[in-house]
Amino acid sequence: MADQSPRRIRCKAAVCRAAGEPLVIEEIVVDPPKAYEVRIKIICTSLCHTDITFWQAKIAPVFPRIFGHEAYGVVESVGEHVEGFAAGDTVVPTLLGQCDSCGSCASEQNNMCAAVPLTMGPGMRRDGTTRFWDAQGNPLHDLFAVSSFSEYTVMDVNQVVKVDPAVSPKLACLLSCGAGTGVGAAWRLAKVEPGSSVAVFGLGSVGLAVTQGAKMCGASRIIGVDLNPDKEKIGKSFGITDFVNPSQLDKSSVCEVIAEMTGGGGVDCSFECVGVPSVVTDAFRCTRPGNGKTIVLGLGAQTDVLCLPALELLFGKCVMGSPLGGMKPKTDIPVFAKKCMAKELELEGLVTHEVALEEINKAFDLLLQGKSLRCVIWMDK
Amino acid sequence: MADQSPRRIRCKAAVCRAAGEPLVIEEIVVDPPKAYEVRIKIICTSLCHTDITFWQAKIAPVFPRIFGHEAYGVVESVGEHVEGFAAGDTVVPTLLGQCDSCGSCASEQNNMCAAVPLTMGPGMRRDGTTRFWDAQGNPLHDLFAVSSFSEYTVMDVNQVVKVDPAVSPKLACLLSCGAGTGVGAAWRLAKVEPGSSVAVFGLGSVGLAVTQGAKMCGASRIIGVDLNPDKEKIGKSFGITDFVNPSQLDKSSVCEVIAEMTGGGGVDCSFECVGVPSVVTDAFRCTRPGNGKTIVLGLGAQTDVLCLPALELLFGKCVMGSPLGGMKPKTDIPVFAKKCMAKELELEGLVTHEVALEEINKAFDLLLQGKSLRCVIWMDK
Ligand SMILES: [Zn+2]
Ligand SMILES: [Zn+2]
Ligand SMILES: [Zn+2]
Ligand SMILES: [Zn+2]
Repeated sequence: MADQSPRRIRCKAAVCRAAGEPLVIEEIVVDPPKAYEVRIKIICTSLCHTDITFWQAKIAPVFPRIFGHEAYGVVESVGEHVEGFAAGDTVVPTLLGQCDSCGSCASEQNNMCAAVPLTMGPGMRRDGTTRFWDAQGNPLHDLFAVSSFSEYTVMDVNQVVKVDPAVSPKLACLLSCGAGTGVGAAWRLAKVEPGSSVAVFGLGSVGLAVTQGAKMCGASRIIGVDLNPDKEKIGKSFGITDFVNPSQLDKSSVCEVIAEMTGGGGVDCSFECVGVPSVVTDAFRCTRPGNGKTIVLGLGAQTDVLCLPALELLFGKCVMGSPLGGMKPKTDIPVFAKKCMAKELELEGLVTHEVALEEINKAFDLLLQGKSLRCVIWMDK
Repeated sequence: MADQSPRRIRCKAAVCRAAGEPLVIEEIVVDPPKAYEVRIKIICTSLCHTDITFWQAKIAPVFPRIFGHEAYGVVESVGEHVEGFAAGDTVVPTLLGQCDSCGSCASEQNNMCAAVPLTMGPGMRRDGTTRFWDAQGNPLHDLFAVSSFSEYTVMDVNQVVKVDPAVSPKLACLLSCGAGTGVGAAWRLAKVEPGSSVAVFGLGSVGLAVTQGAKMCGASRIIGVDLNPDKEKIGKSFGITDFVNPSQLDKSSVCEVIAEMTGGGGVDCSFECVGVPSVVTDAFRCTRPGNGKTIVLGLGAQTDVLCLPALELLFGKCVMGSPLGGMKPKTDIPVFAKKCMAKELELEGLVTHEVALEEINKAFDLLLQGKSLRCVIWMDK
């Protein structure tokens, strides 16, 4: 009887050999899945700012490395002890695990699964080893134990979310990180209430997804804030009701303008989607005393320090942050996907570019130049 | 038929003529209550750090002024349109109004009533005027529209809470500000959960009340942090399970010690009851990733800026503040008073000194020297 267990696969991947250098399409070897792991054939993936942060070696610099953590694919094979997944399942990977049995998973407001904790460094989360090897047999590091810039990847079952095959691959891909983060931040973290007012600082992919999330929750006023005047039009197509460009204000500060727009009090919820500490301070100052919430989503430098006026906090404000905007991947991504299919969430507009794996460096250029929202990279094109 | 309406009252009050100067016991005149106001005969009052902050003119410096905002008394007379209060009612004043009909009062997590908003400056909140006059007929300013360092005071009905006459005057007095703030912060703001771990920075009156509040909520680990070694004993009598003195640590930081005590993760909730920005940073760093909460209660200088490492916030943390620790005075003080009578909350130990109104400057000395927790000032002794 022939051995039915999965073998090593040779395939293409975009490898980053050194910080800030263009990726190189190489033939690599992907190990079979070990226990509690699945091997996934990636259909499409997209480039997220967090990939850029690690590519620039701002956090946990190790190379050579395969980036990519926002994707959609099909299970190719499963390792021992894998329950609930089979070859052919349509799935998305996520950087956060969800075991559904630890204390964190049991808590409504905690998405930092303690069973398979998020780490910044590379390595599969149960044993710290890699599943990727280059043509010379040298190990290649992963990112978040996802590494979707490869035709095949191996992932821990806790980091894989099954999605309805009826959901479009592009939408599912977006929900696995950036768009899911934005919608999650509005829905789960801020718990935006019907009729409430919201300010969104930074109308990139995450900010526009926050906008759609806030709209879905019934916010009646959504104020978009961005230095780029082109963002007014795209912002309005996503649901902002007002646009403020801080560089085009005469004498007033953005906080004064937003205070005036909201009758003096400020907004109920403010979202920082830029990753600049001074913008966090602005976002905080724009919230109303009593129970104004500031949600920090932008990741700047690892050493960034946020500065908040103490007296304002003491007058009833709250500042919060969470990976993926507090989204619980296995619980929330299927819900968000349903809302997309029902057109309660409209996220298609986030895809501004599509390229083949061979053109992946174009996706980097577009994002670095601020010309794209999401560039989807197709493996088979 | 004789005019039954309330007249002006001549009585004693402790007047502060200039910033930082000893109070002077003077004979003053207290106006009758206007519409929506009640006049209260103060039975006892106590000195809170916030009185000191205003006495030192760190915030809203106006003089001459009558301080005091933590008290217990009996309604002497009521103005027009006052419902629900009558002469003889036992009450406590609070610096926060509660109208129970505005949007803020309707919200579970907002105690900044919009109908009678908290202000730092003096003046009755509906018309901005004073009810106090000195012997020469010159106006005397109030504090928080409470001014309990007087035998009689006039207050807005929204700032007066009826309490069961069976509650001891001292306990009711403490609940009206400092102790209510501490218990409220644990119960309403942090929502401390059974079995959770808590760190309390600063074991003064508010910190010890937080300790009792956390214990009431079922916290299993309560770590007290204070530079004063004497606080270990008093802390344990209030319910701390562990004590850390940052000045007596060899090489480790308080965060490292607390991380170790909690198995590496940090506490679920951290309370800053000191009012020093660097302590807020420590308190924040001691909370666990995922959903660690930092509650800021200490009020330092008006211009204080809190500094928080961004990356830690993004790993799932939350920082919040609220006047009176988020307590809704009319809703919560009667509940806390009941819990005191049932011995679920034990706050008597906060009263370390008792003096007569004439000795009020002794209360200031004791608090400034860190020798007292609460010094209760009795009007009739
Ligand atoms: Zn878990
Ligand atoms: Zn991402
Ligand atoms: Zn109200
Ligand atoms: Zn007070």
